Amino acid sequence: MKPAIQRIAISTGGGDAPGLNAVIRAVVLAAAQRGWECYGIREGFNGILQPERYPVDGVFPLPPAMVRGIGHLGGTILGTTNHGNPLRYAMRMSDGSTQEINRSGEIVTHLKLMGIDSLVCIGGDGTLTIAHALHQQGLRVIGVPKTIDNDLDKTFTTFGFDTAVSFATECVDRLHSTAESHQRIMVVEVMGRYAGWIALHAGIASNSHAILIPEIAYDLKQVAAKIMERDAAGRHYSIVMVAEGALAANGGHALQEDASAGYVERLGGIGEQVAHELQQLTGKEARAVVLGHLLRGGSPTAFDRLSAMRFGAAAVRALDEGESGIMVALAFPNVNYVALEEVAGRMKGVPLDGDTLQTGRDIGICFGD
Amino acid sequence: MKPAIQRIAISTGGGDAPGLNAVIRAVVLAAAQRGWECYGIREGFNGILQPERYPVDGVFPLPPAMVRGIGHLGGTILGTTNHGNPLRYAMRMSDGSTQEINRSGEIVTHLKLMGIDSLVCIGGDGTLTIAHALHQQGLRVIGVPKTIDNDLDKTFTTFGFDTAVSFATECVDRLHSTAESHQRIMVVEVMGRYAGWIALHAGIASNSHAILIPEIAYDLKQVAAKIMERDAAGRHYSIVMVAEGALAANGGHALQEDASAGYVERLGGIGEQVAHELQQLTGKEARAVVLGHLLRGGSPTAFDRLSAMRFGAAAVRALDEGESGIMVALAFPNVNYVALEEVAGRMKGVPLDGDTLQTGRDIGICFGD
Amino acid sequence: MKPAIQRIAISTGGGDAPGLNAVIRAVVLAAAQRGWECYGIREGFNGILQPERYPVDGVFPLPPAMVRGIGHLGGTILGTTNHGNPLRYAMRMSDGSTQEINRSGEIVTHLKLMGIDSLVCIGGDGTLTIAHALHQQGLRVIGVPKTIDNDLDKTFTTFGFDTAVSFATECVDRLHSTAESHQRIMVVEVMGRYAGWIALHAGIASNSHAILIPEIAYDLKQVAAKIMERDAAGRHYSIVMVAEGALAANGGHALQEDASAGYVERLGGIGEQVAHELQQLTGKEARAVVLGHLLRGGSPTAFDRLSAMRFGAAAVRALDEGESGIMVALAFPNVNYVALEEVAGRMKGVPLDGDTLQTGRDIGICFGD
Amino acid sequence: MKPAIQRIAISTGGGDAPGLNAVIRAVVLAAAQRGWECYGIREGFNGILQPERYPVDGVFPLPPAMVRGIGHLGGTILGTTNHGNPLRYAMRMSDGSTQEINRSGEIVTHLKLMGIDSLVCIGGDGTLTIAHALHQQGLRVIGVPKTIDNDLDKTFTTFGFDTAVSFATECVDRLHSTAESHQRIMVVEVMGRYAGWIALHAGIASNSHAILIPEIAYDLKQVAAKIMERDAAGRHYSIVMVAEGALAANGGHALQEDASAGYVERLGGIGEQVAHELQQLTGKEARAVVLGHLLRGGSPTAFDRLSAMRFGAAAVRALDEGESGIMVALAFPNVNYVALEEVAGRMKGVPLDGDTLQTGRDIGICFGD
Repeated sequence: MKPAIQRIAISTGGGDAPGLNAVIRAVVLAAAQRGWECYGIREGFNGILQPERYPVDGVFPLPPAMVRGIGHLGGTILGTTNHGNPLRYAMRMSDGSTQEINRSGEIVTHLKLMGIDSLVCIGGDGTLTIAHALHQQGLRVIGVPKTIDNDLDKTFTTFGFDTAVSFATECVDRLHSTAESHQRIMVVEVMGRYAGWIALHAGIASNSHAILIPEIAYDLKQVAAKIMERDAAGRHYSIVMVAEGALAANGGHALQEDASAGYVERLGGIGEQVAHELQQLTGKEARAVVLGHLLRGGSPTAFDRLSAMRFGAAAVRALDEGESGIMVALAFPNVNYVALEEVAGRMKGVPLDGDTLQTGRDIGICFGD
Repeated sequence: MKPAIQRIAISTGGGDAPGLNAVIRAVVLAAAQRGWECYGIREGFNGILQPERYPVDGVFPLPPAMVRGIGHLGGTILGTTNHGNPLRYAMRMSDGSTQEINRSGEIVTHLKLMGIDSLVCIGGDGTLTIAHALHQQGLRVIGVPKTIDNDLDKTFTTFGFDTAVSFATECVDRLHSTAESHQRIMVVEVMGRYAGWIALHAGIASNSHAILIPEIAYDLKQVAAKIMERDAAGRHYSIVMVAEGALAANGGHALQEDASAGYVERLGGIGEQVAHELQQLTGKEARAVVLGHLLRGGSPTAFDRLSAMRFGAAAVRALDEGESGIMVALAFPNVNYVALEEVAGRMKGVPLDGDTLQTGRDIGICFGD
Repeated sequence: MKPAIQRIAISTGGGDAPGLNAVIRAVVLAAAQRGWECYGIREGFNGILQPERYPVDGVFPLPPAMVRGIGHLGGTILGTTNHGNPLRYAMRMSDGSTQEINRSGEIVTHLKLMGIDSLVCIGGDGTLTIAHALHQQGLRVIGVPKTIDNDLDKTFTTFGFDTAVSFATECVDRLHSTAESHQRIMVVEVMGRYAGWIALHAGIASNSHAILIPEIAYDLKQVAAKIMERDAAGRHYSIVMVAEGALAANGGHALQEDASAGYVERLGGIGEQVAHELQQLTGKEARAVVLGHLLRGGSPTAFDRLSAMRFGAAAVRALDEGESGIMVALAFPNVNYVALEEVAGRMKGVPLDGDTLQTGRDIGICFGD
Repeated sequence: MKPAIQRIAISTGGGDAPGLNAVIRAVVLAAAQRGWECYGIREGFNGILQPERYPVDGVFPLPPAMVRGIGHLGGTILGTTNHGNPLRYAMRMSDGSTQEINRSGEIVTHLKLMGIDSLVCIGGDGTLTIAHALHQQGLRVIGVPKTIDNDLDKTFTTFGFDTAVSFATECVDRLHSTAESHQRIMVVEVMGRYAGWIALHAGIASNSHAILIPEIAYDLKQVAAKIMERDAAGRHYSIVMVAEGALAANGGHALQEDASAGYVERLGGIGEQVAHELQQLTGKEARAVVLGHLLRGGSPTAFDRLSAMRFGAAAVRALDEGESGIMVALAFPNVNYVALEEVAGRMKGVPLDGDTLQTGRDIGICFGD
């Protein structure tokens, strides 16, 4: 039986991702079409759990007028936060100690007191776990997947990833001529702690010469050999794309072994390390460029805006159909629903037998193996 | 049994599309990895069929060095042409008349004489029909789908479409503030003679207020009502996205009926017509912007570059596996093969029950029905 | 003696231009630094002259919080309007007739009643004339030049122009490969009714092959000759950039003379006409692309944002120094002040002896003369 | 008297800069218009001084066909190099030692043997010094200024700078929403070893909250105070733009004094240092983003393309007028000539009394002083 919904709330959790505002816009407009009222919760669930910070408007009305013209803007008008997981909320006790407390019940109660019994919860693995817990406590909850890294399972892709790949590709476009004219190795570090999607897609799209991803243990000697082979053929520069979670085949880095104790700390992230080692292995000048922070923000691409709006509209449609405890997902060409319990804690890495990786190998990109 | 391939050729047919060079680059590099030589045919099949134009290098070697750094460039290094379908080639006879002759046999003979027995054929519906004919005559042929409009069947999408949608979206982003400050109706005409994919995707991504596509017969009175409803709510401007193939519900346009004979000719394309009629129906100033030519060119987006390279690499892989008479296609998350005879003459329109169209309706976009 | 300013107002007049919001932001922040309050007038002077439309907030407070994050947005948060020149305001009389009345006095009175005695007036030639009139009536007024076309005299350039040139250039970048692969003449019409700045700058930057501007009477036979010369050299396409105000040497167009009466009307703007005639003169396919509306909007380039903010800050500085009746102007590398009476009614065309035009000639661009 | 020029050569020296190819294109086309032949020298002067590397084509013909479609491409088709200053060329002697030798005479001789007696020399301070030396030895030489950092004296600006400022601005646009949603301090390091032009222009255009440049000794406590003031006003993030050559007021960094010996080495460039110290001073999370390498490459903006082509055409014009030993320079609105001896060794910093810096102060940007 279809629920008699009147008021729904929206929450965005975790880090920034291009497309959040487009999801919010679509949820608000699709809800308005059905005559429902929409409310926004500030900064994940801080708007409810931190009354000292938001005494008045921690949960505030979101009429259609408030989402005018926000679809192409980066960020989120709700704010996000990485702190304060409601399921393990760090609270200071009267004896001065700190305890982790499950405060999810307060969220359900607070929303119900406001006459809100449905929630659209936009976020990554952590947020979707919270969404599942809230659903289990009787709140109607629809999850919307959010991950720049594209590592959420059960959805083909999600908003933000295409924007990150596009900008990383544009950045490497810019580096080609400089690397070539300075005859350098440029190591480009991109996001991807557990999965190499951004590095793989942007690496191929940007004509990088080597790509290092967490899914394939790499040996820098292979990369160095590729670079020297190019050098011998008169191409005195190379671009190496590295996911931040890329892992060396020997469990560490060649040079660390004989380096002085402070070595690892002294160098920054993996990009710096790989650049340093390739310089030693090849005798060529190498530099690292770390794109990390640049890939999270900015105006979403058209692809991401559309994906975000399809998710937002589908979330409202799911509520209208009586669904709860599910995540909307992209199963090209359509959007479908996946149970939240099937999603939480699952990670989607680059498939080693997929044609995208094979494309990279076919066109001569070195993966360090 | 795997074929003993040594030399392959590449042809690009039909109009321009961002990503053609990326396909060529991937084919050349993937072929080189297998030790095969690659040749390019100039301007579709002109390089073979017009020896008077290309006496020497109508079919020319494509070593890897020739595809360096072309992956992000628009256009095609082979050239394209819209003239001279080999299956119905218009030839001037000795008696002065013109006859259509099937010259596909000459192509097969010419290539075989050069020791080339495999062909990668990149193009749209027409080109893929030619590819099928060549396959039937004993040439090993792999088709690669090319259509800006996204209207080829049996592949989820193809390169060029994302670039077109992205640029159309960026253009409308620019028009919003001008339309608003001038309190105008802006009608934006995009490509899409038979299918409304670009208009639908770019229309939603760019926050257009009405979208007219060939798949939905429209009544401009509905659009005018939507515009006046916005006006009454204090939003004195509207953006109307129109596919060039959009068709009015009454089989024509309201004003044409009582217009003088010259009317239709006097107005330009559908964009101009819709603008003119909306101005009459609403009393508001309306202007048309025709994006057509701008959407075909330019540097491909990262998404399109990747799709293009996946297609190119897959085409070579297919040849290596002994395939012929098939088209590589995107079946997310993988590339698969589809028989060319299943593709030719099939058109893929926007599904009326798809969630993308539903997303448009859910967020209040008017489709004129 | 320095004036004791406490409250200032801002008005934006005329059409849209990228950078308006950046000017407003700079004025508000620079005023706040001095402890002044800022007010915005809605839609030129409609906020004052149309009380029936804005009974309450026609002139509204602009605290710094209201200009947060608007610097990179197109449009203007104040709104603009092309109607209702206060110096010749069309009013309906009691006898049903319409008379033009000078309502500038009402503006001065209204602002003074609100305790506002200084005004920053952002606009083009028309707006600056109004600004001068208000200054003469005792209001302290600083003008900020606004023109996409770059045709305002006494300032080297102004915001919006660089954005227009940049986007026109990007559009032609996109057209090159399509024009080449289709072997077409592409005629690109850009803004510039009285001056050819956009056409000249974008035409050179985008490698156009011919440029037609109002400052140089053109003969299309010269352009056709250039196109055929390229054709003979194996370059079967050409890009022709045309300012909307370009004028044929013979005071009209070759083909109009023998065309049927309806000809001129049937064709659209100058772009269509030039394309049509070049097609007849060369026998090559020609198409027109009209960029007009696309060049007014969008996010301003970094150059335009900086110019806009320099203007905004300089306007406040000028008020602080006791100036009135002047326009801030760019006199590289500095901003200076110019008397408003020297500006009004003056137009700045492309100098025929300037090195930019000479650059075009030196690299072989045809100007039709 | 006008020289009878028949053949000229072009050399590009120093690092990459967007616009080099546009200069080359304009020189080649403007020379061709005069009936002159053009030659390119590979990699600065390596094409002449390293015959072992370029036995055949170290100086090669540059017909107009070779510069087709390169105007919008980054890099340089001639190659550049940072090694091997001809005036102090490090050569290995027969006794195994290395000596610095002035090899400029070889360049003049080599070119004259090829019938080339004029040279267009594109580069920064070092290259222009070489150009001057070659001029003194009887070669006709015109210099074209090249500096991303905008720190060359006697020219208002030069190509590459606008592209660098634009991309830095776009990057900060992307960081705003992420910094805000994560409530962080983002420190953005840009190029500018001796002058703060990029930081100043991009910092204002991108709405940065603090800007640190070499011209103004900074005290990070001032920056920290600004950040905390924003924090108190509810704006929990800040963007700090830092030129790589920015220098702390106390000649070092607050924390270095009491830091363990390895501190300075452990941290990377100035961006990392400033981020580290601001984190300690404010207690807020701070991150550094280093844009350096990204700002040198890429397609030039329309502004830079035009400047580059004006320079290239002016260089040929200058040769045609019999000039030598001069640099073409931008003196808005025209290009003029400056004696090379007046340019070499002169550096142009941000003027402390200029209106651009004042604009930054007026809108509340903190400069650390």
